[in-house]
Amino acid sequence: MKKLINAVDDVVSESLAGFCAAHSEIVRMGETAPFVQRRYLKPGKVALVSGGGSGHEPLHSGFVGRGMLDAACPGQVFTSPTPDLILAAAEAADTGGGVLLIVKNYEGDVMNFDMAREMAGKSVATVITDDDVAVETSTFSTGRRGVAGTLIVEKIVGAGAEEGRDLAALKALGDRVNAATRSIGIALTSCTVPAAGNPTFELAEDEMEVGVGIHGEPRVKLRPAAAIAAEMVNAITADLGARARGEVILLINGFGATPLSELYLMYDAVRRLLETAGSVVTRSLVGNFVTSLDMAGCSVTVTVLDQEMKHLWDAPVYTPALRWGM
Amino acid sequence: MKKLINAVDDVVSESLAGFCAAHSEIVRMGETAPFVQRRYLKPGKVALVSGGGSGHEPLHSGFVGRGMLDAACPGQVFTSPTPDLILAAAEAADTGGGVLLIVKNYEGDVMNFDMAREMAGKSVATVITDDDVAVETSTFSTGRRGVAGTLIVEKIVGAGAEEGRDLAALKALGDRVNAATRSIGIALTSCTVPAAGNPTFELAEDEMEVGVGIHGEPRVKLRPAAAIAAEMVNAITADLGARARGEVILLINGFGATPLSELYLMYDAVRRLLETAGSVVTRSLVGNFVTSLDMAGCSVTVTVLDQEMKHLWDAPVYTPALRWGM
Repeated sequence: MKKLINAVDDVVSESLAGFCAAHSEIVRMGETAPFVQRRYLKPGKVALVSGGGSGHEPLHSGFVGRGMLDAACPGQVFTSPTPDLILAAAEAADTGGGVLLIVKNYEGDVMNFDMAREMAGKSVATVITDDDVAVETSTFSTGRRGVAGTLIVEKIVGAGAEEGRDLAALKALGDRVNAATRSIGIALTSCTVPAAGNPTFELAEDEMEVGVGIHGEPRVKLRPAAAIAAEMVNAITADLGARARGEVILLINGFGATPLSELYLMYDAVRRLLETAGSVVTRSLVGNFVTSLDMAGCSVTVTVLDQEMKHLWDAPVYTPALRWGM
Repeated sequence: MKKLINAVDDVVSESLAGFCAAHSEIVRMGETAPFVQRRYLKPGKVALVSGGGSGHEPLHSGFVGRGMLDAACPGQVFTSPTPDLILAAAEAADTGGGVLLIVKNYEGDVMNFDMAREMAGKSVATVITDDDVAVETSTFSTGRRGVAGTLIVEKIVGAGAEEGRDLAALKALGDRVNAATRSIGIALTSCTVPAAGNPTFELAEDEMEVGVGIHGEPRVKLRPAAAIAAEMVNAITADLGARARGEVILLINGFGATPLSELYLMYDAVRRLLETAGSVVTRSLVGNFVTSLDMAGCSVTVTVLDQEMKHLWDAPVYTPALRWGM
């Protein structure tokens, strides 16, 4: 294992300390527990709180800030945050408007966020994201998993919250964005969890995994980018059906170890294929946003837009990892 | 070699096409040659043009936009752009204020940018960056190499150009920022150049390279992050001398395959060490900005600030890869 770390047990806390110090104009560490909180909360606004296992940075801490999340709860690497941590973050972020939890569909996350919601015992609602078309049920989830599309839900709902919408409206908006979103991923290499010290799975030099969540799945022969792009686009457009022939956001997301140049090359291929399939790509995002430590590979996410979603996507956002329109 | 590519010869052009399409609100492809140009040029402003071998993305194309570069010339992977390409970019970007070339100190780059300047035969000046403290002379350069500090020069000079400063003032400013900037890098793995198909060098599981430019150098045993950070900080503060005890920008730059969580962990360690050494870190940047394809590792860059440089660093910037203050 070759990593820039000290003791394995300190990886998350040391990284979090650095993150909060580097972005102190936007975020701060929670006072009651190690969560990340927006430095300047907006009184009366619905608080958006997300979280999950660490190792997927910048998700979710990198999306705390104006126009997106109010707090993020990082668990240990690939481990759900505890209900206590989620509760502490929700209580700190709530300025009177209630709390919306945005949760990726993994059993541990769903269970712990549910427990926190029950413990909070007041105005708390949950949006569950399940955008991965690759598998109907995995080892870690019942139903589809929540992957990179989660950031699109967080961005659009975050803009709605900033505009002053209420909890019920934001819950409905989040469910609607999630329902309009599809993702599929492929991996060229495994990642290595610090506490394990070895790669989670082994892929031969000529193999790749198709349908990788942010954990790992079935493998096939490595192919040229254009062929990989075609398979990914087919999976998404087949699942969207007639809805694919509309205006869309296209997100090409790297898993952490794939150079930006390859992500842009994939963007070029995927965009051409989507447009041939009748989609109109009017909004784009390319980069490492929802990662799996040092995994090489990428995911494609498509969200079918309507006028309201497009307006909210374009609204200003200023977080450590996502910024525009300021 | 596991990469998301098609034919090796098409990697740069396909990636560039995707980049320009994904960021079409900020940049466009050159009309006369394959360089990247700011979409909306500002008449009369000094044009800032940079470039170099591809494989270091987002440098330089990702820094084209308001408050930074007007054009970037990507060569093939790790290969200098041709004088013709640089000349075409300089001519397209010049709106009457003259052209400032910002060039990393590698022999091929310096030679080709010099040829382009001679061919242009008018108001063109050059700032050469040489911020790497690791080696005095390498295979690829006479004197120190230009590495991640180049982005700090481009940002500060870009803000000065946006304010309307003239060519001579910007040349002097660029030289001053470069002289206040020091970098050092370490690598945990080699990168793989697409045309070569195999890693450029091999590192054992317990080895790392210290003083890596963005190409490759001497190797030692892998150590904990805190020890690596101490060695890097010592190299920089020893070189800066008494100047290190001032206000600084701290840039922790990833080489492409290192997770953001490790970069923030390094930021935490480096910042503490710098502050113990008497530096006051008031500006920070953490991310993969000056990369070497899929290399794992990072560099530390420190720029000693004065009031003017701080004002220009804080000025608005809106490019594909760097945004704030808009």
